[in-house]
Amino acid sequence: MAHHYTHQRRVTFAETDLAGIMHFSNFFRWMEETEHAFYRSLGLSVHPLAAAGSDTSTGWPRLKVSAEYRQPLLFEEVVEVELLVAEVRTKAFRYQFRFWKNPGDAAARTLAATGEFVVVAVAATPGTREMKSSPIPEAFRSRIEAAPAALLAPPGAPA
Amino acid sequence: MAHHYTHQRRVTFAETDLAGIMHFSNFFRWMEETEHAFYRSLGLSVHPLAAAGSDTSTGWPRLKVSAEYRQPLLFEEVVEVELLVAEVRTKAFRYQFRFWKNPGDAAARTLAATGEFVVVAVAATPGTREMKSSPIPEAFRSRIEAAPAALLAPPGAPA
Amino acid sequence: MAHHYTHQRRVTFAETDLAGIMHFSNFFRWMEETEHAFYRSLGLSVHPLAAAGSDTSTGWPRLKVSAEYRQPLLFEEVVEVELLVAEVRTKAFRYQFRFWKNPGDAAARTLAATGEFVVVAVAATPGTREMKSSPIPEAFRSRIEAAPAALLAPPGAPA
Amino acid sequence: MAHHYTHQRRVTFAETDLAGIMHFSNFFRWMEETEHAFYRSLGLSVHPLAAAGSDTSTGWPRLKVSAEYRQPLLFEEVVEVELLVAEVRTKAFRYQFRFWKNPGDAAARTLAATGEFVVVAVAATPGTREMKSSPIPEAFRSRIEAAPAALLAPPGAPA
Repeated sequence: MAHHYTHQRRVTFAETDLAGIMHFSNFFRWMEETEHAFYRSLGLSVHPLAAAGSDTSTGWPRLKVSAEYRQPLLFEEVVEVELLVAEVRTKAFRYQFRFWKNPGDAAARTLAATGEFVVVAVAATPGTREMKSSPIPEAFRSRIEAAPAALLAPPGAPA
Repeated sequence: MAHHYTHQRRVTFAETDLAGIMHFSNFFRWMEETEHAFYRSLGLSVHPLAAAGSDTSTGWPRLKVSAEYRQPLLFEEVVEVELLVAEVRTKAFRYQFRFWKNPGDAAARTLAATGEFVVVAVAATPGTREMKSSPIPEAFRSRIEAAPAALLAPPGAPA
Repeated sequence: MAHHYTHQRRVTFAETDLAGIMHFSNFFRWMEETEHAFYRSLGLSVHPLAAAGSDTSTGWPRLKVSAEYRQPLLFEEVVEVELLVAEVRTKAFRYQFRFWKNPGDAAARTLAATGEFVVVAVAATPGTREMKSSPIPEAFRSRIEAAPAALLAPPGAPA
Repeated sequence: MAHHYTHQRRVTFAETDLAGIMHFSNFFRWMEETEHAFYRSLGLSVHPLAAAGSDTSTGWPRLKVSAEYRQPLLFEEVVEVELLVAEVRTKAFRYQFRFWKNPGDAAARTLAATGEFVVVAVAATPGTREMKSSPIPEAFRSRIEAAPAALLAPPGAPA
């Protein structure tokens, strides 16, 4: 059972904006990348049959997302995104994310941003775009658990 | 004094993802576009001298952002983004956003998503990347006011 | 029969990079937006049933694309993208694009960039990701023609 | 002296579009990422002082770019981007790129796309947005050479 994952990435040129820093919307793409890497580390995928020529029947739309920014991320900077499973509901996961600058250096490691996702499992009705929320599939439920409370940020306090 | 603005846009192909809908991160780009269009409607810009070959001394980083999704946006769909000024602080604005499907049709108009920004004014120290929060410039403060409470969503209830 | 279309857009903050100008990759998104707006002006869409809950059977992948840059595009600048149909083949269209700064001002109008697309019609085999090129559907062929040679750029000379 | 570099990346969800494959514009972002990783492998950066609070005086705008697509890239697929230095001019580099599917598997390795960049060195005039092309800085010139002709693709033939 897993409740924690870390993912490292380097800021690319196209992710910066004219303020010279990573555009705030890209933090959400990094959180999603980290979520998907977490699933892969468990042998799972949100779109498992992508390569096999068939569509999956479960989708994972985001219900609520948020981010709080403390320090900008700069071009070519290496950043660690830390994922914590905050809650496992019947039909949804809640994740917390923390962005760490200087991840390899305990003295210089600082928190650049935090975020949160509520992700819902939905079942697609074949041949339509109709979707309705559905229980988290067993393959996910059996591998993912909520992190101990001590690891999770107190509400409103990101670290 | 302004506290309300609406902006229409059509979903482009590059904004969709393999789930066939607008990627959730792009809602944040649309909210920022709407904020900037609101400023332009008042003769303001977050980067006013961009065309004149000189850098501005005030930046507007986002401090906190969030979104809540109710219905997906589809390719080529026209959507209205509504901005409301929720709060004018000494050094920050708080904005609420609502995404409306079928904006021209009162009977079919439905809420697809809501969002919120806290945007801080910062003054750049020339020649460095140091920034510190600073009072909202007078040109912005004199033109932007909080919307009447009746227009603002109750906490947690988006419409 | 149509062979020419123009589309205007304003550069958004998220489209800029730390060089302070529109990132070069976004010119390709603008060319595709213009192509799709051209189709809409003819009552056509590359994904016509998106809203109706059913997938289309024809796809339009790009086979070759290119761009040549002359002047940067700046934040909040309004730019006109001009599309010309350069060639109608059995299974493909070839388009030329020109990006004009100051589109409403004959004296100041200048060419910022040019580009070219070769777009192929493909038929999807239902239930698989197999695609093979196929003749351009009649609805497109009957409405789109090559522009007169005088309007098209000589090879290598963009204007 | 270097003339060759390879870079691996996995396709993210946000990079796909409703056709279920990587959006064609993102290939250009991957080529630029590979170019920048090539520079880093030589101890160089296109924006070396980004972290130090000072702007660089040399920019590297793209003059011409192109891509040719053979096979789509799928969500979560690992792809290798190969960079070859095609030409070193006084004020510009020309690069060739090849996108390889299944990079670790000699039997299954196939070419998904090819591309080309012409990248110009420009010197910025401090305090303005004026830029003019200038000789490639010595730090780049002394480390980067053209690849042997045998490694470069014949014109029009990507592999």
